[in-house]
Amino acid sequence: MTISRVAIIGLGLIGGSIGLAVREMLPGVATTGWDADAAVRRRAAERGLAGTICETAGDAVREAELVILCVPVGAMNAAAEAIAADLVPGTIVSDVGSSKRRVGEALAKTLPGAVVIPAHPVAGTENSGPDAGFPELFRHRWCIVTPDHTAPPAAVEALTQFWEGLGATVEIMDPAHHDLVLAVTSHIPHLIAYTIVGTASDLEDVTRGEVIKYSAGGFRDFTRIAASNPTMWRDVFLSNRDAVLEVLGRFTEDLSLLQRAIRDGDGETLFDLFERTRAIRRSIIEEGQDDARPDFGRTDH
Amino acid sequence: MTISRVAIIGLGLIGGSIGLAVREMLPGVATTGWDADAAVRRRAAERGLAGTICETAGDAVREAELVILCVPVGAMNAAAEAIAADLVPGTIVSDVGSSKRRVGEALAKTLPGAVVIPAHPVAGTENSGPDAGFPELFRHRWCIVTPDHTAPPAAVEALTQFWEGLGATVEIMDPAHHDLVLAVTSHIPHLIAYTIVGTASDLEDVTRGEVIKYSAGGFRDFTRIAASNPTMWRDVFLSNRDAVLEVLGRFTEDLSLLQRAIRDGDGETLFDLFERTRAIRRSIIEEGQDDARPDFGRTDH
Repeated sequence: MTISRVAIIGLGLIGGSIGLAVREMLPGVATTGWDADAAVRRRAAERGLAGTICETAGDAVREAELVILCVPVGAMNAAAEAIAADLVPGTIVSDVGSSKRRVGEALAKTLPGAVVIPAHPVAGTENSGPDAGFPELFRHRWCIVTPDHTAPPAAVEALTQFWEGLGATVEIMDPAHHDLVLAVTSHIPHLIAYTIVGTASDLEDVTRGEVIKYSAGGFRDFTRIAASNPTMWRDVFLSNRDAVLEVLGRFTEDLSLLQRAIRDGDGETLFDLFERTRAIRRSIIEEGQDDARPDFGRTDH
Repeated sequence: MTISRVAIIGLGLIGGSIGLAVREMLPGVATTGWDADAAVRRRAAERGLAGTICETAGDAVREAELVILCVPVGAMNAAAEAIAADLVPGTIVSDVGSSKRRVGEALAKTLPGAVVIPAHPVAGTENSGPDAGFPELFRHRWCIVTPDHTAPPAAVEALTQFWEGLGATVEIMDPAHHDLVLAVTSHIPHLIAYTIVGTASDLEDVTRGEVIKYSAGGFRDFTRIAASNPTMWRDVFLSNRDAVLEVLGRFTEDLSLLQRAIRDGDGETLFDLFERTRAIRRSIIEEGQDDARPDFGRTDH
């Protein structure tokens, strides 16, 4: 089973990058695209984010072997409903959402005739919309695929080959475990970044101008992910509530211990943690998951 | 009053960058350097981090008009004691520490004959040691100078011109206010980053390998600053305790509100914050305090 026609529903950062990546790396695969927003469809046509930009979701999916829903998790059901009537039974329906358990269950319910195989490419930038995508987004990144026991192995293999064709490495994972891993590596970091940026802008004794001026001391690192798509992130926290609250509980416990160490002047506890966390950075760089240059290779100075 | 001879005490990332920047941008200024660690002195000589690398702190400071202590805040007093006997009265003594109130008081007490003018260049990378410095580190960055009422204006002006000569923009600030501003823009971001990296590596249900693999979802951003010099950061938290605990209190309040919003399924509260924090990122980029390219311009993919 090979995929020769892919429908991309939702043409923002991820959907647009998939379309551009297919054009560049899988020239034998045709793409159709649709977005609920007419202005986005127009811009997608200008940028060539898909081979054919369709005026309806039904037109986009009718001949596809694979449909990828690239919309915020909270809009997933509406997207599924928009394609339901025109979807040929047996079509593979996947997505790119950051939480998988609830999304998979909802898609299977709304699209009973489809082969639902949720997926999550662990890639992105702080930008969103039809101008944000680029074809290299998935290169050397992981794509986590979370099939349930009903998914035919040939369909899982076809989806795997598709993502590998875009430069990603595929990992098969249980949806609940995915949601816990991503709560740690993505959702809680975003929540914390949003929080500290909010805290900093609400202080009375430090002006917003001062926060911006002196942000190079560390704060600016957090503002990047706190500039991500608000709708997408609202939906992630609501749909992955249980795992997010569990990891957040651990984080606040750990933070309380450091707070106590600072209050007590306990330098040893601080030093031990700060020494230990360096090793993780080294491993991330060794495994090619970040830029090894100092300061991420920034060239603003 | 102009400065023609600068002594750099401590030849790590900041001290080394000062030496390299002087050589490149202030060719009329001579530099001497000293570090308590003999291996660092040898490496500093190889890299040319100062015009003359001295074998004793006294040799380095004896003919200098400006002495800059570039050591962790907790080592500041030992550095001051190492130069006290050889320091000519009236010499300007400054530093580069991230907390200013306690450091300024301690230096004034240990070096009663010196003109103590604390300073803090808001610049750095996650790397440390004599190999980490580079001459452009201070370019387009702020340097906060925190003189007390006894500092002669001519000396403050000379120090200001020195930092401007290295490419920085100088801001004069009250030391207590500096400590609060930096708690927000630098110290709490580092504390939070250290905490989440620690939390992630201690979980039972998610392996360290998984954390590293999927770190591109946001986590890797935090690992950069959580790889910073542990000694330096331990000292920052201990010396700026009051301001750090105050801002940390605000942060945990705000985080609790978001936690509650997630538990209650209150998407509006989440969306409102996530929308608001985007504006700060835009301002930081407009003011040239960060790289405007997506993902900081990383090129690892």
